[in-house]
Amino acid sequence: MQTIQSDSYPIFFENSIQELVKFVERGNYSRLFILTDENTGEFCLPAIQTALAHLDKTDIIEVNAGEESKNIDFCVGIWKMLIDFGADRKALMINVGGGVITDMGGFVASTYKRGIDFVQVPTTLSAQVDASVGGKTGVDLDGVKNIIGTFTQPKAVFMDVDFLKTLPPRQILSGLAEMLKHGLIVDSAYWDDLKNSDLTLPSVELVHRSVEIKNEVVIEDPHEKGIRKALNLGHTIGHAVETYSLMNDDNHLTHGEAIAIGMICEAWLANKKTGLPDADLQEITDVLSSLYPHYQLKEETFDILLQHMQNDKKNENGNINCTLLTRIGQYSIDNVCTPAEICDSLRYYAAL
Amino acid sequence: MQTIQSDSYPIFFENSIQELVKFVERGNYSRLFILTDENTGEFCLPAIQTALAHLDKTDIIEVNAGEESKNIDFCVGIWKMLIDFGADRKALMINVGGGVITDMGGFVASTYKRGIDFVQVPTTLSAQVDASVGGKTGVDLDGVKNIIGTFTQPKAVFMDVDFLKTLPPRQILSGLAEMLKHGLIVDSAYWDDLKNSDLTLPSVELVHRSVEIKNEVVIEDPHEKGIRKALNLGHTIGHAVETYSLMNDDNHLTHGEAIAIGMICEAWLANKKTGLPDADLQEITDVLSSLYPHYQLKEETFDILLQHMQNDKKNENGNINCTLLTRIGQYSIDNVCTPAEICDSLRYYAAL
Repeated sequence: MQTIQSDSYPIFFENSIQELVKFVERGNYSRLFILTDENTGEFCLPAIQTALAHLDKTDIIEVNAGEESKNIDFCVGIWKMLIDFGADRKALMINVGGGVITDMGGFVASTYKRGIDFVQVPTTLSAQVDASVGGKTGVDLDGVKNIIGTFTQPKAVFMDVDFLKTLPPRQILSGLAEMLKHGLIVDSAYWDDLKNSDLTLPSVELVHRSVEIKNEVVIEDPHEKGIRKALNLGHTIGHAVETYSLMNDDNHLTHGEAIAIGMICEAWLANKKTGLPDADLQEITDVLSSLYPHYQLKEETFDILLQHMQNDKKNENGNINCTLLTRIGQYSIDNVCTPAEICDSLRYYAAL
Repeated sequence: MQTIQSDSYPIFFENSIQELVKFVERGNYSRLFILTDENTGEFCLPAIQTALAHLDKTDIIEVNAGEESKNIDFCVGIWKMLIDFGADRKALMINVGGGVITDMGGFVASTYKRGIDFVQVPTTLSAQVDASVGGKTGVDLDGVKNIIGTFTQPKAVFMDVDFLKTLPPRQILSGLAEMLKHGLIVDSAYWDDLKNSDLTLPSVELVHRSVEIKNEVVIEDPHEKGIRKALNLGHTIGHAVETYSLMNDDNHLTHGEAIAIGMICEAWLANKKTGLPDADLQEITDVLSSLYPHYQLKEETFDILLQHMQNDKKNENGNINCTLLTRIGQYSIDNVCTPAEICDSLRYYAAL
């Protein structure tokens, strides 16, 4: 599978651990710091450690798994460890894990001593198809997702569908939501491919196409001024539902489950506002409803959800902006939706 | 006095409050957040508030004055206030104060929602001649100065020597150390001008020349790979002394006082290692000793000072690097100094 060249760095899909070793050997790094969590530590990490052992300059920094770790307190902990380890500007951070690790590790590296090099080794499907491209780093604060962060590119990304074999099905489904989104916004043939595939473990070809789509969009618009907003499909409403669930549910929604809800609601809005055909709305609703479990959205939570949307960094001047489809494979950005319209779309989902 | 064009933004020296108002009116900002401390709040702030009052979209965020405020906890406080105020990506931060405010405000702005616009209104001499140019933002962690930060340029800098009139003489002297440094590294005529001037309140011409020198150096080397290291003169040893004093003295050294000590020690090293003539060493020692009070450097603290130097983000692979003069007005970068040499230079200062 071909290496994809992003903005300024390569994304490897095969022989990733060997490629990582080659990269590290070429770079004149003073030390290597692997940031990981206890889940990844168990599976992927040993292979990487073994492959880097001959260099004898690797330290491991492990944090708790889960979105709860993605905050400034953990960043402070990691920064302090880097200070204690004597990490200088020629140190390299290797972020091995899901989106929490790659987003937070990228942020820590981009701000330690005003920026050290980092590479990403995404080990979940979401991190592979979403977090690995685009240069977004960040952590949550006060329950607001990714509110603190930078735009900083990694020096390379190393992924492998083999990393996904030990993942629980629910985590695969979470990443799949981003892949379905990539089809919906720009490639109806890819959407059809996905619909008709066995999605319990997506093929390297499907993952590759998803990264390719995201990369094309991001390269055209690195700072999210225009077409990159296409990637926000499902995220205006989805992020709010995710934030709510994270704060209120014991067994909270995954990112992908929340985005799938967002895509259904926003398909309903698109049908009302940007001419998405009835058949497309029905198809999107059917495909997503069959893949993802239904979540109970209660009327009395709508106000809180609207508040989260207004706090979203995607929105300006208090308006709620949505990326909406005009048909499957075509989008329209910056559609201001009123609170009443948003609530109606939530009711559409709730009544399914 | 002419406006200096830095990398991507203008630096104003006259009519600065009017220029700030013009800038803000042109920019289509959703809200304005003035970050300031209680000292600046008393003097400069009222004039700025009055000048911006007609726009009716300004909020004030005030932090405690002093280096002790320049840490992640205060950043978290400011980020949370921005969230609470509903600041979106079109908000502008106006940092009004000394280096603590401009460095920390720059960092907060450069990481809030992955970066919002900010401008600097430096109200101390140090901030005018040092912090206003170069795009360095940052805060301290665990007593390590500026260890967390980014390289991000402000959209404009507005300064005025009138802002300095209410400053205590010790603060003027602190900024003066950076101006003397600018002369020492690249402009012996400017060094002579400074020596022969009344320095209780430096003229706008002297401030302007200092900003011009720093700007030329920084534009040539924005990411501190080569000649920008010239600006580290006095800082390898000076930063360590400053960190020590900050952690141990009730009435701790100012940044400039510490840098002056560093410049004397490093002049001694230059005399030993890079051929700085005896007469130049004597002149530097005399001028700096006459301007700055003597500080007691005790032999038993040398180990701690060396440790701070090894932690300094300027240093790599455990070596201590100094920028050293070859004569007044000429420098040489990346001179590795041994711990023994550093200790001897500290003894030279201690025996003055």
